[in-house]
Amino acid sequence: MADLHIQINRDKGGIAGQIASELRESIRGGRLTPGTRLPATRDLATDLQVSRGVVVEAYEQLVAEGFLVSRVGVGTQVTPKAPARPAARQKVAPRPTPARPNAPVCAPFYGHRPTSPDLSHFPRERWLAAVRHVLTTVPSEALDYGDPGGVPELREELAGYLRRVRAADVRPENLIIVGGVAQGLSLVLHVLSRQRPLRLAVEDPTSHRQVPLLRRAGAHLVPVPVDEEGLDVRRLSGDAVLVTPAHQYPTGVVLSPPRRAALMEWAYAGNRAILEDDYDAEFRFDRDPVGCLQGLAPDRVILSGSVSKAMAPGLRLGWVAAPPDLAEAVRRARGELDLGSPVIEQYALAHFLRTGGYDKHLRRMRREYRRRRDALVRALAEELPEIRVKGIDAGLHVYLELPDGWDELRTTRAAQELGLSTEPVAPMRDSPGSAAVVVGFARLPAHKAFEAVRGLKVSMSGQNVD
Amino acid sequence: MADLHIQINRDKGGIAGQIASELRESIRGGRLTPGTRLPATRDLATDLQVSRGVVVEAYEQLVAEGFLVSRVGVGTQVTPKAPARPAARQKVAPRPTPARPNAPVCAPFYGHRPTSPDLSHFPRERWLAAVRHVLTTVPSEALDYGDPGGVPELREELAGYLRRVRAADVRPENLIIVGGVAQGLSLVLHVLSRQRPLRLAVEDPTSHRQVPLLRRAGAHLVPVPVDEEGLDVRRLSGDAVLVTPAHQYPTGVVLSPPRRAALMEWAYAGNRAILEDDYDAEFRFDRDPVGCLQGLAPDRVILSGSVSKAMAPGLRLGWVAAPPDLAEAVRRARGELDLGSPVIEQYALAHFLRTGGYDKHLRRMRREYRRRRDALVRALAEELPEIRVKGIDAGLHVYLELPDGWDELRTTRAAQELGLSTEPVAPMRDSPGSAAVVVGFARLPAHKAFEAVRGLKVSMSGQNVD
Repeated sequence: MADLHIQINRDKGGIAGQIASELRESIRGGRLTPGTRLPATRDLATDLQVSRGVVVEAYEQLVAEGFLVSRVGVGTQVTPKAPARPAARQKVAPRPTPARPNAPVCAPFYGHRPTSPDLSHFPRERWLAAVRHVLTTVPSEALDYGDPGGVPELREELAGYLRRVRAADVRPENLIIVGGVAQGLSLVLHVLSRQRPLRLAVEDPTSHRQVPLLRRAGAHLVPVPVDEEGLDVRRLSGDAVLVTPAHQYPTGVVLSPPRRAALMEWAYAGNRAILEDDYDAEFRFDRDPVGCLQGLAPDRVILSGSVSKAMAPGLRLGWVAAPPDLAEAVRRARGELDLGSPVIEQYALAHFLRTGGYDKHLRRMRREYRRRRDALVRALAEELPEIRVKGIDAGLHVYLELPDGWDELRTTRAAQELGLSTEPVAPMRDSPGSAAVVVGFARLPAHKAFEAVRGLKVSMSGQNVD
Repeated sequence: MADLHIQINRDKGGIAGQIASELRESIRGGRLTPGTRLPATRDLATDLQVSRGVVVEAYEQLVAEGFLVSRVGVGTQVTPKAPARPAARQKVAPRPTPARPNAPVCAPFYGHRPTSPDLSHFPRERWLAAVRHVLTTVPSEALDYGDPGGVPELREELAGYLRRVRAADVRPENLIIVGGVAQGLSLVLHVLSRQRPLRLAVEDPTSHRQVPLLRRAGAHLVPVPVDEEGLDVRRLSGDAVLVTPAHQYPTGVVLSPPRRAALMEWAYAGNRAILEDDYDAEFRFDRDPVGCLQGLAPDRVILSGSVSKAMAPGLRLGWVAAPPDLAEAVRRARGELDLGSPVIEQYALAHFLRTGGYDKHLRRMRREYRRRRDALVRALAEELPEIRVKGIDAGLHVYLELPDGWDELRTTRAAQELGLSTEPVAPMRDSPGSAAVVVGFARLPAHKAFEAVRGLKVSMSGQNVD
């Protein structure tokens, strides 16, 4: 555990910033070396006589900047040595933070993800045509302050789409257009936790990126383990649950029919809410689509989805489907928070859906991603049979259970060096399972899969010799 | 559905133009009445034995001219008379409050405002060109999950713009791109009130729409009166203050130089924050621009602004300029709330700023709004000299102090019936001042000002006789 010498000037304000600044300098100057564990926030707060929240903020800041990594059960440590991220992205969108000696193993809190789609296939021309259609046809009034719940035409189109493709039970008035699933969850949790503290059950493991979001929105998290059938409903507790039933993140497991039934029972028995994150329902390869839970229990389930995987995360367009009262509360919250999403691209998406452009793009990408997945899975089976590959039925990533002796951080680093979009899996609670990583294949062309997997094999066998 | 009698001279060429011309004359001559639905393009093309594209072209031409409106799911119809809002929106998203016998006096919590710009002048073609530029030039990576603080190119352009036009003291890293001033304030207050309850001083009277937003973001409001010099700084209390120094809303008063100095003193004496809403700084008619407060005290003032008045509220694009620590906290909050604003239109605005399109549009609109303001002020002076007209130096509205016997609610209703964009002024605390209303002039063409004011005169004298 590091012994920290941090000086605070209490007259200056911005205590968290001062702590972060001191730590940053210590890491830069080499006084805190890669891998060093930092004191628990509670202990450091006591030492410095500041509130714990201040230390948490300082740590989170440095995690975001990549100086620290934080893993539940392990604590916070100085980021172990690792490769830099691809140069091209840094040129386009330079990180505002100064150059770092070490790059993060865990991704920063924004930027590329293993589940990011292949954006070189974004339908630029057809999207431009949709925007052109909007700008030559919408009445001027449409550009004024609008309904914070979203453009009516888009809600109409989306309701039809979700009924058709996801077997959802939605009407336009149940839908709120939002800036993606993150905002959808933020708003719903904000509304649900306004009256009383909300204990939210979350799948464990889950997307580590969502954890700060859920907490900021006012939820107290209750991790519930995931097994081969998905969320273990018998061990569920809390006032609400957040699930990814169609394709659990990160394990890729599908919630089994008995578990779906049990989850419904749980919700009805205690008047509890189910938050359903339908994050990659569009990409399903080997089996019939699993309809969303919302279609079974529209009065209990709040469905969130977005075009981030199907189109591009940068569009920041998504939706929430909720029972009428909650939908209205979410719409009001949106109206009192930011007045709603930009309208031109909402109209453009409505046009894109109505004219079939969305379906066409999805069909094309589904074929392409299937090819890429097949190539990666085949390469792994042939070159690294000691890895158990899971969760391949759907989505844009595979879940790899690592053999004994493989560490998820080193594996991630090795895979990242080869250009693979990889993240370590970090359960919130200690679990007896194998170490695991997630590898996204959306940007790995089929013809490069073998080369990448062979590279990983070489790299890991080299490391194991060390 | 309209039964159209359209005669085409096939020898003449320009068939689309001929169809448009016939339709235009039918609308002008009253044969096609407002609200009439036109046949589907496919049907009309069959009737006329022309290709469908020709009919589409004719319709789009008339939509561009404002004779027709076209809405997804509804089709094309003759533009309804002075529609407050499209009927379709009301159907999809009914106001949650029960129906009221009288037309709304206070506006609903969304929709048109007296400060809304004239959106028929929105630079549709040039904006489309900017979007086209973006979609043909940005790298794919730019469409991925981005920096929640905003696209670097836009922060760069905006920092330059704000330094040049508003004498702001900002660098790109102080700027966070947000979905308008509402979101800017929400985020800043969320961050400021996270550690402890925040008592926020607000101008009284203020924009009644902001009150629920400020409260939802966690602020306890402390109203402080506004007089002829702006906010009465001597009566200020709280941990922070929200001000509109360049043109107070609704009174239109400019914060006087001594008050500006006193406000700074107040902020520095108690380590307090000033939230500056620069909501219509672009439209200044009769005097030199007043630089923003932020330029004087960048470590104390948090500046918010948007393109809602200069371009369109529906773009939902704005910014927050804050001291580094706070800017970073706001950026993080954004990253944990909704992951940032859509990127394509951020790049488009950067391009629009860089290529001078923004300045050009503003110059044009400033001239036009000045004409409209002059016409309204002249008409009021001649027809209703008993009204005191204030706050006319800048912005898109005037503040009218009503004579004895005029009630602000009845006046508002009468003005709204005449199509004037009007709101009653409702101080948070009882004040001895006159009843007052705000009238927006952005959408009142100069040649209609006299007619509107005369209408108001007749209407109010009629009511006073009652």
